[in-house]
Amino acid sequence: MTLNTSVRLARRPAGMPVADDWLVEAAPMPDPGPGQFVVKTQLISLDPAMRGWLDDRPSYLPPVGIGDVMRAMTVGEVVASEHHRFGVGSVVLGTFGVQEYALSDGDGVTMVDSRLGTPSMYLGILGTTGLTAYFGLMELGKPRAGDTVVVSAAAGAVGSVVGQLAKLSGCRVIGIAGGSEKCAYVVDELGFDIAVDYKAPGLRNALAQACPDGIDVYFDNVGGPVLNAALGNLAMGARVVICGAISQYNAEAPTPGPSNYMSLLVRRATMSGFLVFDYVNEYRVARKRLARWVADERLSAPETLVKGTVADFNDVLLRLFSGDNVGKLILDVRTG
Amino acid sequence: MTLNTSVRLARRPAGMPVADDWLVEAAPMPDPGPGQFVVKTQLISLDPAMRGWLDDRPSYLPPVGIGDVMRAMTVGEVVASEHHRFGVGSVVLGTFGVQEYALSDGDGVTMVDSRLGTPSMYLGILGTTGLTAYFGLMELGKPRAGDTVVVSAAAGAVGSVVGQLAKLSGCRVIGIAGGSEKCAYVVDELGFDIAVDYKAPGLRNALAQACPDGIDVYFDNVGGPVLNAALGNLAMGARVVICGAISQYNAEAPTPGPSNYMSLLVRRATMSGFLVFDYVNEYRVARKRLARWVADERLSAPETLVKGTVADFNDVLLRLFSGDNVGKLILDVRTG
Repeated sequence: MTLNTSVRLARRPAGMPVADDWLVEAAPMPDPGPGQFVVKTQLISLDPAMRGWLDDRPSYLPPVGIGDVMRAMTVGEVVASEHHRFGVGSVVLGTFGVQEYALSDGDGVTMVDSRLGTPSMYLGILGTTGLTAYFGLMELGKPRAGDTVVVSAAAGAVGSVVGQLAKLSGCRVIGIAGGSEKCAYVVDELGFDIAVDYKAPGLRNALAQACPDGIDVYFDNVGGPVLNAALGNLAMGARVVICGAISQYNAEAPTPGPSNYMSLLVRRATMSGFLVFDYVNEYRVARKRLARWVADERLSAPETLVKGTVADFNDVLLRLFSGDNVGKLILDVRTG
Repeated sequence: MTLNTSVRLARRPAGMPVADDWLVEAAPMPDPGPGQFVVKTQLISLDPAMRGWLDDRPSYLPPVGIGDVMRAMTVGEVVASEHHRFGVGSVVLGTFGVQEYALSDGDGVTMVDSRLGTPSMYLGILGTTGLTAYFGLMELGKPRAGDTVVVSAAAGAVGSVVGQLAKLSGCRVIGIAGGSEKCAYVVDELGFDIAVDYKAPGLRNALAQACPDGIDVYFDNVGGPVLNAALGNLAMGARVVICGAISQYNAEAPTPGPSNYMSLLVRRATMSGFLVFDYVNEYRVARKRLARWVADERLSAPETLVKGTVADFNDVLLRLFSGDNVGKLILDVRTG
């Protein structure tokens, strides 16, 4: 009998998640019923939004329940099937959770098209990550050639794509990242025009120097003082895109909002939020564009694959918040 | 020789402005040169934005300089003229400042059209106040019939107009005001559906009760905890219009921003700022509409006229911040 090891939420974390917040459980691998199939997990996506799913408060998705398998986007291979479309051997993308095997009826499942990209790309540049960057920048940021575009967490999964797409759009791109190594990376490897280190003092002034005509598009992944500094440097008619707030996800007390929000008035600017799921009907077109740019080497899709088992989930998750990783962070549970 | 008494900024206020922040000066009334005219002040507009003009920081207008006449919109009568368009006896609207007489070359001056409204209406419903309400609500709030519209400082000059225009647009309107008297006023006199008292505890819950389907349009004049409570109650696709932040204008230390701004993401909402001056080319059309609605008694234009001299400016200004006045606050310096 094959066992399915899963990672379940044992209790809601206070601040940074710890090992005791999770329960690692083994149960028999499920069998597919009619119209169902079983996916063997290969790659697990790690995303800052996961932290939000652990808190018991209303959001765009219900919180993960106590005792439930942790929600996660994964890529896996169908190993048993009674489904007309997803046959054994299919490689698929879905919200299968942090477990070795998942049962599915195909709802919300995408076939991985190897002509477009590798399985890991389906979690990164062709997955929610790349699509979030694409729709957030294009639909809300509305970049025009010549605009100054600033993106925070510039070396991260979403930020690295946003900056490159802004360059493709003819914009001047400034990345905000933590430390000289990441700053060098976004300029040298990703082709950003300038990088600004948010760990150095005087972020607001550093942004002012990097953006003498102000910021036309600010794409925010971090919140907190970085968002506030960007709001202090807006150009007239600026668009501020709220994509995430990773600096706040593990806060144990309410964090202050951006006190410079009145710049929206002075600069006649707009700050909007979005969720990539709203654009699901346009995913296919966007994936093709992103894949084409990657194939043409106009877009690089940085990723960090960490080898391990599902039980390593919490350790790998924490790398998102320590600011160590570059590009898309993936837990690779393939053996051999 | 006729003297011109003016109120000049003696020093920058710390917090609430006090008498010693001003210098009341008398000098000879100016004579018009070629292409100039002299306006005798009748009515002086009191606006929350005035407080911002006193701080030495970059904004949409340069700060009032030390020793300069205090900037103010006024209505007055031309008493001497060498100007081809503005002859003696013309009643005009302009940024003539807190003084008895002003010299002008006609730049930025509007003729008061008595067919549209009274002189005081040109500072209120037909002036920057009413136009701010009109363009902020219509252009940024984009109200649709059936929407739930919430406005703060609902008994104030701008808020009272915003709520009435939202009713005219077929919306359900909730006003936020301070105290039971003002709350009764916005419902009984202005026709709002519900009033919520921000001074009572539990504002966020009170708004949730008043807006069971969430807030589609939030028009903010106050900032601070009221803005934050509204952000916690947005409907999907909500529009948040930032018009002012009167709760913060006299703060002596930086005030926290709205910590609930991440609702913009969860609710796919937009928060934008604007300045009425951007719509100057559309003023004429808007004034006609507003005047028509007033004439048809579909729109009431509450105003509070305080009799006095220009030297009373600071005392009257403070009424804006004490939350005592209702509707447009005007210092009436006409004699007799």
